[in-house]
Amino acid sequence: MAQPSTPVSPPLKDELDIVIPTIRNLDFLEMWRPFFQPYHLIIVQDGDPSKTIQVPDGFDYELYNRNDINRILGPKASCISFKDSACRCFGFLVSKKKYIFTIDDDCFVAKDPSGKEINALAQHINNLLTPSTPFFFNTLYDPFRDGADFVRGYPFSLREGVPTAISHGLWLNIPDYDAPTQLVKPRERNSRYVDAVMTIPKGTLFPMCGMNLGFNRELIGPAMYFGLMGDGQPIGRYDDMWAGWCTKVICDHLSLGVKTGLPYLWHSKASNPFVNLKKEYKGIYWQEEIIPFFQSLALPKECTSVQKCYIELSKLVKEKLGPVDPYFQKLGDAMVTWIEAWEEHNNPPAQAASKPEPNDKKDKPSAKSK
Amino acid sequence: MAQPSTPVSPPLKDELDIVIPTIRNLDFLEMWRPFFQPYHLIIVQDGDPSKTIQVPDGFDYELYNRNDINRILGPKASCISFKDSACRCFGFLVSKKKYIFTIDDDCFVAKDPSGKEINALAQHINNLLTPSTPFFFNTLYDPFRDGADFVRGYPFSLREGVPTAISHGLWLNIPDYDAPTQLVKPRERNSRYVDAVMTIPKGTLFPMCGMNLGFNRELIGPAMYFGLMGDGQPIGRYDDMWAGWCTKVICDHLSLGVKTGLPYLWHSKASNPFVNLKKEYKGIYWQEEIIPFFQSLALPKECTSVQKCYIELSKLVKEKLGPVDPYFQKLGDAMVTWIEAWEEHNNPPAQAASKPEPNDKKDKPSAKSK
Repeated sequence: MAQPSTPVSPPLKDELDIVIPTIRNLDFLEMWRPFFQPYHLIIVQDGDPSKTIQVPDGFDYELYNRNDINRILGPKASCISFKDSACRCFGFLVSKKKYIFTIDDDCFVAKDPSGKEINALAQHINNLLTPSTPFFFNTLYDPFRDGADFVRGYPFSLREGVPTAISHGLWLNIPDYDAPTQLVKPRERNSRYVDAVMTIPKGTLFPMCGMNLGFNRELIGPAMYFGLMGDGQPIGRYDDMWAGWCTKVICDHLSLGVKTGLPYLWHSKASNPFVNLKKEYKGIYWQEEIIPFFQSLALPKECTSVQKCYIELSKLVKEKLGPVDPYFQKLGDAMVTWIEAWEEHNNPPAQAASKPEPNDKKDKPSAKSK
Repeated sequence: MAQPSTPVSPPLKDELDIVIPTIRNLDFLEMWRPFFQPYHLIIVQDGDPSKTIQVPDGFDYELYNRNDINRILGPKASCISFKDSACRCFGFLVSKKKYIFTIDDDCFVAKDPSGKEINALAQHINNLLTPSTPFFFNTLYDPFRDGADFVRGYPFSLREGVPTAISHGLWLNIPDYDAPTQLVKPRERNSRYVDAVMTIPKGTLFPMCGMNLGFNRELIGPAMYFGLMGDGQPIGRYDDMWAGWCTKVICDHLSLGVKTGLPYLWHSKASNPFVNLKKEYKGIYWQEEIIPFFQSLALPKECTSVQKCYIELSKLVKEKLGPVDPYFQKLGDAMVTWIEAWEEHNNPPAQAASKPEPNDKKDKPSAKSK
């Protein structure tokens, strides 16, 4: 692709971390090199911590395995899932940057209909740096894109928009289907490139997928908790959904925006639907109670910060979803533990008056780039 | 375009009317001939009734001018606007079909990115015949399109969807901007073809444009009233917006769906922004009060039909918007008159027990195709 002749610093280079949960060597980064190399990576190694994960040369990264998570969080490590991509939220917690982009390691660079490779990260940054419009629907989609605007009848008082907290990207090739749909439609591929970004309206929930996700950590980070999934837990594959429901109701409460649509990436392989069914089946029926819970939820106006909202939410989860299954009592407790860990690592009381240290010694990863 | 070798009856041929408000000869129909010719047209002639409107040969139509409207509705004709495209709703009232497609006479056939001419009517029919999903957002857009489905995390209990009442199509070339935006961006053209149809979520209002609109008359017809605009009224260009706000809150109340997105048509010419500003300026500030009114509106559960909802809405308009301007008292009265006229022509009491006549003698148009 053509590059400008004068070098331009990549946008938000020093303000964004790329978080990647993985159990394998990160060869997939080769394809992303032109887009990711200027940025810092936080790799969260899931599974066996004695295994060495190879990272291609030239990337600036830090890598945390389970031993690191246990050492850094101590007893609070219980809130970080094991053997599930939910572990990625540990990376959100130890990041000191304003923005996060997180991506799965089976996702590659997609092409737009003109054949041009899509810089997914740049599009997320663009989504995050332009306002959202959650209070009224704009029929020509994102009014802040080139060649678009608010249409006739859009109230002028709402055209300023609100800050964007989340940018949810999509997937070409393998769509993000649940196990039943995978089983019924094993050959379905997503080949429809929809050239749109839009704000998900206030009051509307959506299924947030963690495969291709950007967010403003300062605005919504403490709510971007991926729950208790995987090893020792009764469900999996609902980590991102959980984070999506929680963040959306908090964004709605705090007047923050959530966008979905572009950018696309290329999702290379479908996970095993039989394994997925085992992980999902409790979630599939629990969500029939969870979603009405989130849809009818009202946070009190005293909840003026994400942390306060999240603590309030943890209480409501225990009270209203606890009767569905004891799992939600545990999850409610883990939500509190997560906030405590977040506070400890992001607003340490002892350091509050002094210059904040970007990486406390105790927080050191077990591997990083030279 | 390739045609199937065995003749296939156009979808809904005998169940859909195309309603066109106009003040000029309908040469624009030539370009639509392959798509519209099988259908019946209802032409609502605005302005001077002594003028003769030419309709290209071969179309099956009936044409109503102002004299017809006055004769057919008698004193209730006061609810039908004059010198404003709002007069189109008269066509909705006299139609006896289940579905309506309405289009402006400056709109032509657009091409999709592959260069193929878009059959806008067929796409509207497809939108109307497949369910909507207003209770939860599907990130891959319309789950009922080929190659798409509900994504992981979409509650299974909501996948049946609800009946679709409205299909709102978009415009390539001249976007539907208000006068201030037209003035600020005189050269902006919409060239972005977004290959998506989506349901506008429950609880979210949108700016409904009447240029390219399909709806199920049986489900929502009585609420598709375009208000008092144009001649003798303090505003114009808010006719479709008014219908959009009213129909959306009623669809939400009755669990009916509203879709937007495809199909596109080619909007050929921008109207004069100075003239538009004069028509719009009261609407531009009134809408700042109208929209919160509609957003906070709750219809009582006793309102189980569109008619009941609309009568209730007329009362609320007078009560809550009356203080904004006396115009809303008049508008509230006109809403009631509209419903009375609708009932008279669609559920005539005398004929209730006998076979309904598709066109009462008194309802005859002043011109129709031979």
